[in-house]
Amino acid sequence: MSVISMPEKFQPPKGTKDFLPEEAGRVQLVCDTIRKVYEKYGFAPLDTPAFENFELLSAKGAGESVRNEIYNFKDKGGRELGLRFDFTVPLGRVVANNPNLPKPFKRYQIGKVWRYDNPQALRYREFLQADIDTVGSAAMLADAECVAAVCECLQTLGIKDFFVRVNNRKLLDEIFESAGVAKEKIFDVFRIVDKMDKIGAEGVRVELEKNNFDSKKILPVLKMDLEEIEKKFENSAGLRELKEFFKFSKALGIEKFLKFDISLVRGLDYYTGPVFEISIGKAKVSCGAGGRYDNLVRAFGGQDLPATGISIGVSRVVAVMEEERLFKNFEQKKIFVAVVNDFVRQDAIKVCRKIHEAGKICSIDLTGKSLGKQFEFAAAGNFNFVAIVGPEEMKKNSVKIRDMKTGAEKNVKISELEKFFKNF
Amino acid sequence: MSVISMPEKFQPPKGTKDFLPEEAGRVQLVCDTIRKVYEKYGFAPLDTPAFENFELLSAKGAGESVRNEIYNFKDKGGRELGLRFDFTVPLGRVVANNPNLPKPFKRYQIGKVWRYDNPQALRYREFLQADIDTVGSAAMLADAECVAAVCECLQTLGIKDFFVRVNNRKLLDEIFESAGVAKEKIFDVFRIVDKMDKIGAEGVRVELEKNNFDSKKILPVLKMDLEEIEKKFENSAGLRELKEFFKFSKALGIEKFLKFDISLVRGLDYYTGPVFEISIGKAKVSCGAGGRYDNLVRAFGGQDLPATGISIGVSRVVAVMEEERLFKNFEQKKIFVAVVNDFVRQDAIKVCRKIHEAGKICSIDLTGKSLGKQFEFAAAGNFNFVAIVGPEEMKKNSVKIRDMKTGAEKNVKISELEKFFKNF
Repeated sequence: MSVISMPEKFQPPKGTKDFLPEEAGRVQLVCDTIRKVYEKYGFAPLDTPAFENFELLSAKGAGESVRNEIYNFKDKGGRELGLRFDFTVPLGRVVANNPNLPKPFKRYQIGKVWRYDNPQALRYREFLQADIDTVGSAAMLADAECVAAVCECLQTLGIKDFFVRVNNRKLLDEIFESAGVAKEKIFDVFRIVDKMDKIGAEGVRVELEKNNFDSKKILPVLKMDLEEIEKKFENSAGLRELKEFFKFSKALGIEKFLKFDISLVRGLDYYTGPVFEISIGKAKVSCGAGGRYDNLVRAFGGQDLPATGISIGVSRVVAVMEEERLFKNFEQKKIFVAVVNDFVRQDAIKVCRKIHEAGKICSIDLTGKSLGKQFEFAAAGNFNFVAIVGPEEMKKNSVKIRDMKTGAEKNVKISELEKFFKNF
Repeated sequence: MSVISMPEKFQPPKGTKDFLPEEAGRVQLVCDTIRKVYEKYGFAPLDTPAFENFELLSAKGAGESVRNEIYNFKDKGGRELGLRFDFTVPLGRVVANNPNLPKPFKRYQIGKVWRYDNPQALRYREFLQADIDTVGSAAMLADAECVAAVCECLQTLGIKDFFVRVNNRKLLDEIFESAGVAKEKIFDVFRIVDKMDKIGAEGVRVELEKNNFDSKKILPVLKMDLEEIEKKFENSAGLRELKEFFKFSKALGIEKFLKFDISLVRGLDYYTGPVFEISIGKAKVSCGAGGRYDNLVRAFGGQDLPATGISIGVSRVVAVMEEERLFKNFEQKKIFVAVVNDFVRQDAIKVCRKIHEAGKICSIDLTGKSLGKQFEFAAAGNFNFVAIVGPEEMKKNSVKIRDMKTGAEKNVKISELEKFFKNF
């Protein structure tokens, strides 16, 4: 087959990709599974437009600099718009704009967001997120419930080697203050410490010093375990939250997935309490994160409402599942109806309908090509079974079913087709 | 409750809307149902970026004029992009760009498209479509299969009073030619006749005359029934296609939904054979349409591939189902766990988990408010049952379940909760 080099206009725009059927099906499966778990935990769907008013996207302290990181444009009425870059900003807007929504408002949103990053492997300018958030509850149970829902998503997908790093920003504030960092400088320290995974402890040390922070006081606190912290910061509000969070996590049956990590800060400046990061495997692939952000909804002109949430990066999860070959557990059997000649095509349609009645995925030949070509197509399309409809078979009111993996063939009466395929 | 007038930035951008939980859930249900039927018929998922290169969107003869009807913008690299306005253009691109996809290529795509129309009731600038198309089969069975899939979608959703108007563009070509219309003028006539539903027969007559067409010859042909056409156009290629289409439709069990209508032309100039339009109810609400377009894929620089497809307008279907009160048939029961006080909160979490294990949607109180307030919340959130967890109940290892509709209460042992809720 010849490789044709297509002009740019026939390719997906730079930084985006097409999801061809196999991959699109996998993404769909992951999104469906996540959605069903989210719903079970009482989160309700919310859907917002792909774009928002630019004024909204640039609120939240991000300011004009957000312009460099998003797709922004004007509509024909001169309104400045931008493609959404997350689901938190639209949530803030919806809550502010619908003050009568019953609280706590627990919603999920699964869909695409867009960021004008430089494209990299596994990082596209268009990607899928699956978020849950609870607005209107200050209880640590709300935080623990979000983490529990995400843990159940990953478990349901068959992912075993994941864990959730947990920390608390209030506790970090208190610890850094006690290490001599001025209150207004704490976020600068957060930003440097957040690079730990990327630049290592030595890199963090150099950058702290460069910014006139006392690394000798700051670095040791990032190695403290919970026991040490409990001794030194007995009266800390952050520690109380953390303990409360762990208590509820235990009742929710997820404490085995949690790892307290005082060095987890999460860069976003709007977090105010618990913060989480989900990691999978030895490579610690981050496939989601979140935390509590009690001041955000008010910042959108809404009521003063505490909020917490967590987001799953769908593409990361799909990549992990591909690597661990987990999709085979979810494979749906597909049947192809091969048609020997045009005289039996209408019989073949009825056979196809019988298989549909068993709830199975079934396609019928649409080409009139030779049986050999039809089998080639069934093999290329990863069909599990071929049901052959021919004049001989029809005389006996039966079809010949070939298992495409083993090559085994079996004659099945048409009246028993539904029963036959229901067993798969 | 006070009505607060929100600044524009807190509202969805002009021409778009938010889908709050109830409506979002309905849209989700419709999309899920459609997707499962499409998959059963052997259509595989395809997902493409929200935006495409503008050069692509303006191909297909639409030219620069498409600029006035879409959201177009430049990315930071100076590339001119536009939000997709349908799924047919991306499909053409994907097929051209992936020449090795096994054919026939049967794909579905469900998602949002964007058009810069003037907003009207039920017409938004952002809306959902659910498309199926088969690329690489010239067989009328491919067309009939698409229509059958859509009929099964509507039936599965509980819609009863729908029908599919069917015509054939080849047949229309032949009939108009025989009525004295020059070949190169036929599409101009199509465009006028297509307004029949909007401006009526008299309006069409006036417009035909204004454009120097002989309305006395054209209007009568639009009233012919199949019998008359069979007599007059015995050797028509279009008639042969139409008969073939009806033969397969019969085998597919959908002939009862079909209405031949020689006046159906469908405006899009790329149709080359069968055309369809789905109408619901006495008001004949159009909730989908499609047809065969054998020259489109080649127009995208791809192979010369015949193609056919059909598209459902999701919002229209949702609106019809709301009007006919069909969503109640799909209602999922929701349970709220009310917590009498903090001492039993961890027990309540366990109760919630038991109900999750029964696969049910269940939320637990996250506020610590009074039982009365919790019941108010459960009522506002349309919960079907409230499970009350209190110290008295816990002593007996049971919870009190209140049916929110009837007010009936029942004590259920915790060990029997899963069984209890599985029955709903």
